[in-house]
Amino acid sequence: MQQMIDLIKQKGVNLGNGILKVDSFINHQVDPQIMEAAGKEFARLFADTKPDRILTAEISGIAPALMTGKYLNVPVVYARKRKPITMPDTVYLTVAPSHTKGVMVDLIVSPEFLPPGERILIIDDFLASGATIHGLVRLVKAASATLVGIGALIEKEFEGGRELFSNLGVPIESLACITAMDDEHITFKE
Amino acid sequence: MQQMIDLIKQKGVNLGNGILKVDSFINHQVDPQIMEAAGKEFARLFADTKPDRILTAEISGIAPALMTGKYLNVPVVYARKRKPITMPDTVYLTVAPSHTKGVMVDLIVSPEFLPPGERILIIDDFLASGATIHGLVRLVKAASATLVGIGALIEKEFEGGRELFSNLGVPIESLACITAMDDEHITFKE
Repeated sequence: MQQMIDLIKQKGVNLGNGILKVDSFINHQVDPQIMEAAGKEFARLFADTKPDRILTAEISGIAPALMTGKYLNVPVVYARKRKPITMPDTVYLTVAPSHTKGVMVDLIVSPEFLPPGERILIIDDFLASGATIHGLVRLVKAASATLVGIGALIEKEFEGGRELFSNLGVPIESLACITAMDDEHITFKE
Repeated sequence: MQQMIDLIKQKGVNLGNGILKVDSFINHQVDPQIMEAAGKEFARLFADTKPDRILTAEISGIAPALMTGKYLNVPVVYARKRKPITMPDTVYLTVAPSHTKGVMVDLIVSPEFLPPGERILIIDDFLASGATIHGLVRLVKAASATLVGIGALIEKEFEGGRELFSNLGVPIESLACITAMDDEHITFKE
């Protein structure tokens, strides 16, 4: 999506060591208009997969997943990192490393919102090493649901995350794909 | 907003001790259509306050704030509970008790996204004791910005949060106001 690539070029900050700061429109401040455009584009790309529900991870996946859910007219579930008191005693839980925090985090979903047999589309902000999305894929499997696709706003192709999912046989879409990053330049697949 | 009240009556679960579980459309699963309706309604209610930016708290405030930002055409900033590596060294930080987790949490905003002098609208999921929103108000003050309004999807009037903000002279709006809750009944202001 050219609009996403342009926004990264214009407002993204290359912090070096492969770290891209997009805090001004995705990760701390959110631009509602780009999120709506992204949701509309994901809905177009994944319409044929006919998802029953969208799964994402708190926190930064919520905005793009919500807008995609709006256009596909399906509910959005965000895996929580802590189990609130309102959640039932028994849940699906997996553990995944957080590359921006340097720690392991829990990803927790209540079985109420991930029923067996449903068609699940995963949407997140980044597809980099694939660790978080891989955690979400494990939750879909734990629930005996069917994964139908994976979408990310920004892919760092050089971190290899996509390869983790190539054997799953589902479409994987990113709206801006970065093929290489050094401390000076960001190279996009255009 | 009658639609929000109806949804609480239909899908909310009264867990007793004043705890309302709305995990099926706000706090774990999100209903994009009700969030869009809520955003549109907040935009109508706060249009006259002419905000430059919306401030919310991760996690459950993001969806209603995003939809409000969409309709008011302003960016949305969510206070983070942990400082990611992409954030600058010096930030605004305040501490607030989380009533659903029983612990103190940090609320952190980067000065980049809360410039002095701007008009800030706070949107969150719940206005109960007011502790989280009070933390956001302190961040607005720390930034020398101007608070112009406070909006919440659901207010628990009996927890008294609104009184904390009555001296601020800004409009406070909730889309569903619960005046009393015991283990059997939920009473709405209609």
